[in-house]
Amino acid sequence: MELPSKLLENAVNEMSQLPGIGKRTALRLVLHLLKQPVDQTQGLTAALASMRNDIQYCKECHTISDSDICGICSNLSRDKTIICVVEDVRDVMAIENTGMFKGVYHVLGGKISPIEGIGPSQLKINSLVEKVKNNAVSEIIFALSSTMEGDTTNFYIYKQIKDFTLKTSTIARGIAVGDELEYADEVTLGRSLLNRIPFEISIKQ
Amino acid sequence: MELPSKLLENAVNEMSQLPGIGKRTALRLVLHLLKQPVDQTQGLTAALASMRNDIQYCKECHTISDSDICGICSNLSRDKTIICVVEDVRDVMAIENTGMFKGVYHVLGGKISPIEGIGPSQLKINSLVEKVKNNAVSEIIFALSSTMEGDTTNFYIYKQIKDFTLKTSTIARGIAVGDELEYADEVTLGRSLLNRIPFEISIKQ
Repeated sequence: MELPSKLLENAVNEMSQLPGIGKRTALRLVLHLLKQPVDQTQGLTAALASMRNDIQYCKECHTISDSDICGICSNLSRDKTIICVVEDVRDVMAIENTGMFKGVYHVLGGKISPIEGIGPSQLKINSLVEKVKNNAVSEIIFALSSTMEGDTTNFYIYKQIKDFTLKTSTIARGIAVGDELEYADEVTLGRSLLNRIPFEISIKQ
Repeated sequence: MELPSKLLENAVNEMSQLPGIGKRTALRLVLHLLKQPVDQTQGLTAALASMRNDIQYCKECHTISDSDICGICSNLSRDKTIICVVEDVRDVMAIENTGMFKGVYHVLGGKISPIEGIGPSQLKINSLVEKVKNNAVSEIIFALSSTMEGDTTNFYIYKQIKDFTLKTSTIARGIAVGDELEYADEVTLGRSLLNRIPFEISIKQ
């Protein structure tokens, strides 16, 4: 795609480095900014720059936070001995929305992925193992996505903590509530059979 | 969607003002930037800011250009008396890609749209009418999209130039090359019958 202006081309190239945004979409977005008042572009660039430069992470759980300790970790009514291991802040938000979890989180910041060049040292794994070593943890719940990378990461962490006295669990995989069996993939359906739960328990949920 | 950080929230809000980008997509894009080196965010914000502040438009045809007169308008082999009226630079690029047009363009910068609050005065219509008044034009080809807004804009311009001696035309609407008739909408199919062309001419194209 040959663009008639170097400035336009630079903007389109930078924009199209974002995931899921191709050159055509980038051009549409950039032309939209050109049609809008200058304020909008200034607002966007200022917000992105200050976010990238000044964002902070909770010292306890490594989630994005405006303070040293995030609202969840500083909440006295949360059970700090139950830690849910997740990939990023979106997972924290998703689980918080259920209102079903009263423990705290540990945000790894990604998953082990040799293809993307992400090794264990780039993730917040050591601080999690430290917490376990300090006997501060009674249960770890693995809530990473069940992909090759997620399973690898789970297993890597599990190997380092398995000799300590604590419960480990993973969130249940199964048929989503309201879904039809016939459309479920066989792995999920198989797991939902293997991990079936007593009917008396299910009707109380 | 409640975000755990004001900086993140600002960035997501600004990002989600772009067309076709909702809050969830905006969050994904912003978290991607956080994972990448600072350089990438700096590159993006710098490119957007300098584009918005320094972009220039061709004084002849109003397309985006790095110089006062764009490459097409300054090309001596283009026929300046044939003007193709388009909405924005993407249309110019699309027509240029065909290699079938040897005239020049006139970029309106939008279409008349009362719903979006865009009136004729916000578009580059006057300078087009000026060109016609100066007897500099032999043919005007309307190539706006055939929507309500496009047709309104075409008609608004046509009313102002119809008393001058020049040809006016619109690009042909019809079944796309390679398309099956059964999937065409009836308006397009109807127009392609009304505006049928002699077979002898079609086989030469």
